[in-house]
Amino acid sequence: MEVIAGVKQMQERSQQLRAQRETIAFVPTMGYLHEGHLSLMREGRKRADALIISIFVNPTQFGPGEDYERYPRDMKRDLQLAQGVGVDIVFTPSVQEMYPQGFQTYVEVEKVTKNLCGISRPHHFRGVTTVVTKLFNIVKPHLALFGQKDYQQLVTIKRMVEDLNMDIEIIGLPTVREPDGLAMSSRNAYLSPEERRAALSLYRSLCKGEELFRQGTKDAKAILREIRKIIKAQKLAQIDYAKICDPHTLEDIDEIEGEALIALAVKIGETRLIDNVILREG
Amino acid sequence: MEVIAGVKQMQERSQQLRAQRETIAFVPTMGYLHEGHLSLMREGRKRADALIISIFVNPTQFGPGEDYERYPRDMKRDLQLAQGVGVDIVFTPSVQEMYPQGFQTYVEVEKVTKNLCGISRPHHFRGVTTVVTKLFNIVKPHLALFGQKDYQQLVTIKRMVEDLNMDIEIIGLPTVREPDGLAMSSRNAYLSPEERRAALSLYRSLCKGEELFRQGTKDAKAILREIRKIIKAQKLAQIDYAKICDPHTLEDIDEIEGEALIALAVKIGETRLIDNVILREG
Repeated sequence: MEVIAGVKQMQERSQQLRAQRETIAFVPTMGYLHEGHLSLMREGRKRADALIISIFVNPTQFGPGEDYERYPRDMKRDLQLAQGVGVDIVFTPSVQEMYPQGFQTYVEVEKVTKNLCGISRPHHFRGVTTVVTKLFNIVKPHLALFGQKDYQQLVTIKRMVEDLNMDIEIIGLPTVREPDGLAMSSRNAYLSPEERRAALSLYRSLCKGEELFRQGTKDAKAILREIRKIIKAQKLAQIDYAKICDPHTLEDIDEIEGEALIALAVKIGETRLIDNVILREG
Repeated sequence: MEVIAGVKQMQERSQQLRAQRETIAFVPTMGYLHEGHLSLMREGRKRADALIISIFVNPTQFGPGEDYERYPRDMKRDLQLAQGVGVDIVFTPSVQEMYPQGFQTYVEVEKVTKNLCGISRPHHFRGVTTVVTKLFNIVKPHLALFGQKDYQQLVTIKRMVEDLNMDIEIIGLPTVREPDGLAMSSRNAYLSPEERRAALSLYRSLCKGEELFRQGTKDAKAILREIRKIIKAQKLAQIDYAKICDPHTLEDIDEIEGEALIALAVKIGETRLIDNVILREG
């Protein structure tokens, strides 16, 4: 497994792979890898000749007062895990190399980034789309894989790729969960044992929402009322948002017709967690 | 010479050229080609295996009340001129294909787009960088050529390419002028004979500025005073801006040290023209 830190070197290496007619699968990550990341890598491994991942905690997607500095990092363990699933190249650029003095260009997807996490994290998705564009131009993948846990991110990146005519296939894969249902996230490392128990309320409330929908409830308010009730029963939990949206436009809906997204962001102590589920008729 | 209108077809054709290890030079244009465009094409012809141009009047770089609808168009003549300089492929997408329903992604270069044309045309450069990103992703060039007449555009695109790690060489070529000095522009077609004479004041005033600089004047205000005087002598001319800037940051400067840009935007009747010159010591 190769580890490449330089932008120019990575770009040349990818150019070389493409000249050899190898297809490239790419999994961008902020490191502190868990089974969610590894499932993306295993799928990428199957679908392409070369598998490249990036490990880069991207400062432009964190807001002031968010957890950029304390975001968990463990490069040694990450490299072992990547090697274990057959990654060919790990790209590990520095902040200085990604955002040199004078940097001033941003990619912005305007509508699908406005609701949900866009409300409490107004510059987050601009940071995501900008760094993903940069990484795509450096790694030159044929396909890139993202987790559905970050559902709004996945919709945003698909929209960006289509709007800017990036010749890259975007693949979204299901959220990987702990045995008790908690969605895997690098931020779960922040949770105390007590918070870890309270965090289960996200998944439990989503299951309740799904159950109500399957039983015939189509009124979004009625479903959200039950969801909020379950989360609010936890003293350590504070809801940022609980919404039911159109899964393509991410606009709020009142009455579910066909598909819908239930999306949650909840602070458990100081840790902000997100989770979601797609409701589908039939 | 091939003419391709479809985005997917163009993308596949460029992919094919790259698979054959051909290098691609690209000249994006809004059509109504003149010697300025043709000089870019001739240089591209020399520097790469395949020469691709685009002809697309891009609506997102025009503001409300600007000349998008009446911008001059003559596809038949353009295709003949392109063939004459050895263009291999002309890409002629429709607005519908470039900006389908639901389009919502923009690329923005923040600082170098603020001064000069960015003041009276606040969304212009966002339209330019967005369409150029799209065209780059469709045409997949190794190098792209732009005229120095649109100096701020050239600086903006270079900045975008560097910031977003686009693996494309950007080449700027000198402004091509009519025998009497008027900078070539598709918009010159708007000028009446009387306006055409008044339009010469742009070039004449830039020459005066250059002369004063060569004679030792380093005070920007003193140079701009003489420039404004020459333009204001024309009844049909109205100055949008006349500025002296740092040629890299495009920030106004008071005292010229080393290099400087003199940049003009002047309305001649209803027609807004721009021109510029770079001042260099020694």
